[in-house]
Amino acid sequence: MNPVEQAMIREIIEDWVKAIRAKDVKSVMAQYAPDVLSFDLIPPLQQRGADAIRKRVEDWFSTYEGPIGYETRDLQVSAGEDIAFSTSLDRSSGTKKNGERSEMWMRTTMCYRKVADEWRITHEHVSVPFDMQSFKA
Amino acid sequence: MNPVEQAMIREIIEDWVKAIRAKDVKSVMAQYAPDVLSFDLIPPLQQRGADAIRKRVEDWFSTYEGPIGYETRDLQVSAGEDIAFSTSLDRSSGTKKNGERSEMWMRTTMCYRKVADEWRITHEHVSVPFDMQSFKA
Repeated sequence: MNPVEQAMIREIIEDWVKAIRAKDVKSVMAQYAPDVLSFDLIPPLQQRGADAIRKRVEDWFSTYEGPIGYETRDLQVSAGEDIAFSTSLDRSSGTKKNGERSEMWMRTTMCYRKVADEWRITHEHVSVPFDMQSFKA
Repeated sequence: MNPVEQAMIREIIEDWVKAIRAKDVKSVMAQYAPDVLSFDLIPPLQQRGADAIRKRVEDWFSTYEGPIGYETRDLQVSAGEDIAFSTSLDRSSGTKKNGERSEMWMRTTMCYRKVADEWRITHEHVSVPFDMQSFKA
């Protein structure tokens, strides 16, 4: 465990959250590695590559009228020299374009690698649990 | 990235999969750190500690009549000196006690820390995506 690297990872998360709140696609994407693997909230089962993530982020932002509220809770970061991961419970909120108020809690796991002295998100896993009986999320 | 550590993580996953197939709770639990944080397939949102995981594993195993089929696909491991993570698409299958045949694909992220020279799973995140309209997993 490395406290200096840990602080750098926390900065990445802060910048990522700020970028989401500002609906700033470019600044969101700046945190991802080109070959990032995403296990996202909605299908497909997996997506690979920054282009796929960018499309997903653009779609996500475009469903909201005005700003997106985004906060992380219980953030924990474990960082070594060149591999790190973080876990948190994240809450997104806002008003959808159809006028509906949306609010959701998610579990977020982010995994990072340091390449050429820069930390990048190489894997993200965002989900909600589902009920085994009704299959409802 | 460290190939020696990477091989050690692959061994952990192999042992964990073998233990699931054998419904051997003790050998499954041997891979987890005492303070493991779990984002599981079903509620609650999160669980902490090996005791909670053990209870979940026991419940899981007890719903199956006979053995559980379990395989990992697209396994990728990133390992440093003392922090590591792995991603895979996992498929579980078997016959439930009610006679129903069950088969499911999941996304699995595992995060590891090396403590006292031993790698342990300190975080697991298992999920399926859900449909935004129907909320069905």
